[in-house]
Amino acid sequence: MRVGEIGEFGLINRIKRYFEPPEGIIGIGDDCAVIPFGEKELLVTTDALVEGVHFFESSNPYLLGRKSLSVNISDIAAMAGEPKWAFLSLSINRNRDLKWIDEFVRGFSDVAEDYGVCLLGGDTTSSDRVVINITVVGENDVGESLRRGSAKIGDVVAVTGRIGCSYAGLVAIERGLGGFNELKLKHLNPKPRVVEALRVKSFADAMIDISDGLVQDCGHICRESRVGVRLYWEKIPFCHADFVTQEEMLCGGEDYELLACIERRFEEKVKGMGDFVIIGEVVNGDAVEVVRNGEVIHIKDCGYKHF
Amino acid sequence: MRVGEIGEFGLINRIKRYFEPPEGIIGIGDDCAVIPFGEKELLVTTDALVEGVHFFESSNPYLLGRKSLSVNISDIAAMAGEPKWAFLSLSINRNRDLKWIDEFVRGFSDVAEDYGVCLLGGDTTSSDRVVINITVVGENDVGESLRRGSAKIGDVVAVTGRIGCSYAGLVAIERGLGGFNELKLKHLNPKPRVVEALRVKSFADAMIDISDGLVQDCGHICRESRVGVRLYWEKIPFCHADFVTQEEMLCGGEDYELLACIERRFEEKVKGMGDFVIIGEVVNGDAVEVVRNGEVIHIKDCGYKHF
Repeated sequence: MRVGEIGEFGLINRIKRYFEPPEGIIGIGDDCAVIPFGEKELLVTTDALVEGVHFFESSNPYLLGRKSLSVNISDIAAMAGEPKWAFLSLSINRNRDLKWIDEFVRGFSDVAEDYGVCLLGGDTTSSDRVVINITVVGENDVGESLRRGSAKIGDVVAVTGRIGCSYAGLVAIERGLGGFNELKLKHLNPKPRVVEALRVKSFADAMIDISDGLVQDCGHICRESRVGVRLYWEKIPFCHADFVTQEEMLCGGEDYELLACIERRFEEKVKGMGDFVIIGEVVNGDAVEVVRNGEVIHIKDCGYKHF
Repeated sequence: MRVGEIGEFGLINRIKRYFEPPEGIIGIGDDCAVIPFGEKELLVTTDALVEGVHFFESSNPYLLGRKSLSVNISDIAAMAGEPKWAFLSLSINRNRDLKWIDEFVRGFSDVAEDYGVCLLGGDTTSSDRVVINITVVGENDVGESLRRGSAKIGDVVAVTGRIGCSYAGLVAIERGLGGFNELKLKHLNPKPRVVEALRVKSFADAMIDISDGLVQDCGHICRESRVGVRLYWEKIPFCHADFVTQEEMLCGGEDYELLACIERRFEEKVKGMGDFVIIGEVVNGDAVEVVRNGEVIHIKDCGYKHF
């Protein structure tokens, strides 16, 4: 049997079965690992970006440098943590122009500065195609990290920003559409929601960043929390773009917005803060259901496929 | 200008200039980053292995899984730390057989168990060629991490194991020589010297693991500590292999032995422990000199080249 036949989550489960984290540590399966350490919790996340898969030789290296770090910072935000230190492995062809490196590092460095992150190490090695691997370490107070697996029935479900803009931007780029710069930048230069995460953390039971698509990421909450999530179509802040459908926006990845499950008694408070919009609720069940015009639509097999 | 023209260290310096670590933190340039955290120091190291560069499609995946983790654990050992947690990014072709994955993970897991390390997270993504990136986090008591940059003039220089066996093993594999299994395994399955590092830590001023070759790694000590290192040819425990020269062994990489600079007053004590052999001393200067039959030989441009 081959990797493509079991897919990303089959592969992760195949690896995971060998490793049981010690008591109190959150290992494989959330946005970050969470390690109690002294009077704090350490958060660790790592992500690979491969040329030809996640970006192309022609991709703007400055924006690529920004995005590479931003998507990792977004994983720290998803746990309501504070990003601190980064590590960069850069596999690169010896014929690559140094200007590419300089632009990549400038982008990386600009995001690092914006979020108070410092690059402390890494590895450089030769490779035909560029492969970027970034590890970000963050911290949190003990017990404060918001997991995927702690949503509670009755919570309201809320998101930041607009859903589907990154996907719309990607479509605009792929089709060579002129204009739509704001959408294209949503795809090329996502902004991790660290501040919004810190503001909502005391009201939320669970959180995730929307990287695989709204429906798929709600599915992660369902599976890890053993609950259902009901979303109300009319409440979802869809992206304004008429060349992709709202169905596609529900499934498109890489928004890097936050999805939080918030205790219902804090609903008004969170609405008043202005960062989050309520789009649904946590219910009995084991899957995502989307309600449109009062009718339940089941959306299956939706979202970014890694293999 | 292109990456190949400035080489690995030129590239690292080009990246490093953007990032100044906060006071008290050791950033880019040692075997690990060192971060004071609560009552401990965190150690973080990351390494990428690329198919076609560091290994081949035909490489034994069990041994590759072992080596991938071992070389990272060796960086923690080089700082005299205790390895704790690992993170694995696996970029892999969707057509790769799952047996390959299972064998790779079994190798990784066996080394993890031997060294008390737990895999806590990672990333899986598709890629034409396999790229493995591993991050290992370790810990140490505050101020106990042994740096490259703290060797002192008068220290004696000591190494574990034999020098050049990994290189001899690589040559045996590349030439298709029958036998020499012990040497081949030195290359394919290096053993990180965590225990030896912990035993020597209270006697040493500085330490490094020999990954780029004895002479090149001594050069890193020279540069970071602003000293010279004098090695005595006759004292070096060369590998027993008559199909590579001792000159080649001085430059061959990937031994993953330790090189420690030890306070001279502890020389006899360290000799008595049996892990380390004294091969030289730290002297005034800025480079490595090798003394053979009482004459100084300068060895230049020696060791593993990443680009």
